[in-house]
Amino acid sequence: MKKPLILVTNDDGINAAGIKALIEVASEFGDIVVVAPDSPQSGMGHAVTLSNPIRLHEVDLFEGIAAYECTGTPVDCVKLAKNILLKDREVALCVSGINHGSNASINIIYSGTMSAAMEASLEGIPSIGFSLLDYAYNANFEPSKPFVRTLIQHVLEHGMEHGTLWNVNIPKLPEGQIKGIKVCRQANANWEEEFVEAFDPRGQKYYWMTGNFVNKDTGEDTDIQALRDGYVSVVPSMHDLTNYKAIQSLKGLNAF
Amino acid sequence: MKKPLILVTNDDGINAAGIKALIEVASEFGDIVVVAPDSPQSGMGHAVTLSNPIRLHEVDLFEGIAAYECTGTPVDCVKLAKNILLKDREVALCVSGINHGSNASINIIYSGTMSAAMEASLEGIPSIGFSLLDYAYNANFEPSKPFVRTLIQHVLEHGMEHGTLWNVNIPKLPEGQIKGIKVCRQANANWEEEFVEAFDPRGQKYYWMTGNFVNKDTGEDTDIQALRDGYVSVVPSMHDLTNYKAIQSLKGLNAF
Repeated sequence: MKKPLILVTNDDGINAAGIKALIEVASEFGDIVVVAPDSPQSGMGHAVTLSNPIRLHEVDLFEGIAAYECTGTPVDCVKLAKNILLKDREVALCVSGINHGSNASINIIYSGTMSAAMEASLEGIPSIGFSLLDYAYNANFEPSKPFVRTLIQHVLEHGMEHGTLWNVNIPKLPEGQIKGIKVCRQANANWEEEFVEAFDPRGQKYYWMTGNFVNKDTGEDTDIQALRDGYVSVVPSMHDLTNYKAIQSLKGLNAF
Repeated sequence: MKKPLILVTNDDGINAAGIKALIEVASEFGDIVVVAPDSPQSGMGHAVTLSNPIRLHEVDLFEGIAAYECTGTPVDCVKLAKNILLKDREVALCVSGINHGSNASINIIYSGTMSAAMEASLEGIPSIGFSLLDYAYNANFEPSKPFVRTLIQHVLEHGMEHGTLWNVNIPKLPEGQIKGIKVCRQANANWEEEFVEAFDPRGQKYYWMTGNFVNKDTGEDTDIQALRDGYVSVVPSMHDLTNYKAIQSLKGLNAF
């Protein structure tokens, strides 16, 4: 049987430990092509490079695996992979990550990792973004691997509804202490920003963005709660942002 | 009566004609504060600046109106406005645009204009992103103004459901030929990318992204159809990306 083709990407850059762990698991299932940014791109959201050229270089980083570093954003990586490198091939699955740090709740909006996964889903490719709740450069991805394996296998066997992607977050727990997988909704949480003021050597003021993640959503069915309880959270997500309920209440606007 | 405070931003940059038109209409209704990028930021999506300092400079561009240009992304502009400039004031409305070019359908995902509007809605501010279907630098925004006026007035009078923002697109038609306003859903359309290959003076290959917008959604209730029919489209949108229908069909995953 022909092996499925799996596209691997991320936003922490092609040298991150998280993508190496993801490649190790994904390569158990199929032929792998890696296209990832040549430098960290966290917080890049769904940015695309319109006003600058984009470059793509083949690299020899993962034994026996075709890998390319890209000067563009995570979304650029997926677009280049689909339209240049894999133009005439059917991509069975796109996996993005494993992100160093949470992409639960509203982080899906800001995350380059999740935006890359969303771009793949827009292109009709079943797609999963994986994140570990550990920002450390040397985070331990070993306890994540069994869950990454289970979820990849599930999608390859059962497919994924068109227009859907999965936002998967994994608690920072030792091997054996993760309790299982929970399918959840996105918690209605948010960042409360603070800006640190400072002055450059020429006396000009600048700001550094920082912030606190605040969850006021007390629901038991959210990704944040599942992670707190020691579960891997899976939020089936989509790119249709229409608020269908609100359409009804706004029908009066049609009179104008 | 105290005038409402209205935050104005965009992604085409503070010198664009579209933001000037928006300021002209918004200032009929309230006190205006403008915070916009110091250079064009189209296609920036929901990117935030995490690894670089951000600067904010007061500028004297619009008579009698407080205006600031920002070195960051459109989302940075909203975060800085809310957390630094307007820290202790209640913002009644955020308006973003008027964008030079369509943000209908899937463009909401890529657009800095719409991401700025979404960021405001995340902060609890009623929020509207306006776009004119004319990419030209010298686009004529006069025919848009009556509709911008109607929609701003509606939100100031009736409020907006929490967590919602409006994606408003305006057809490129002469004054008097726009037929009215239609409340719609986001069309299920997409970009089919092409990459133009070229070589730099050192013989290194690079790519320019380009593409064609393809709509395969034949529904009569979409924003694309409303615009084709000569209407202003209003899509009530949201930042909860959960695919609630898919949650049910994935319950089996909870067994792992």
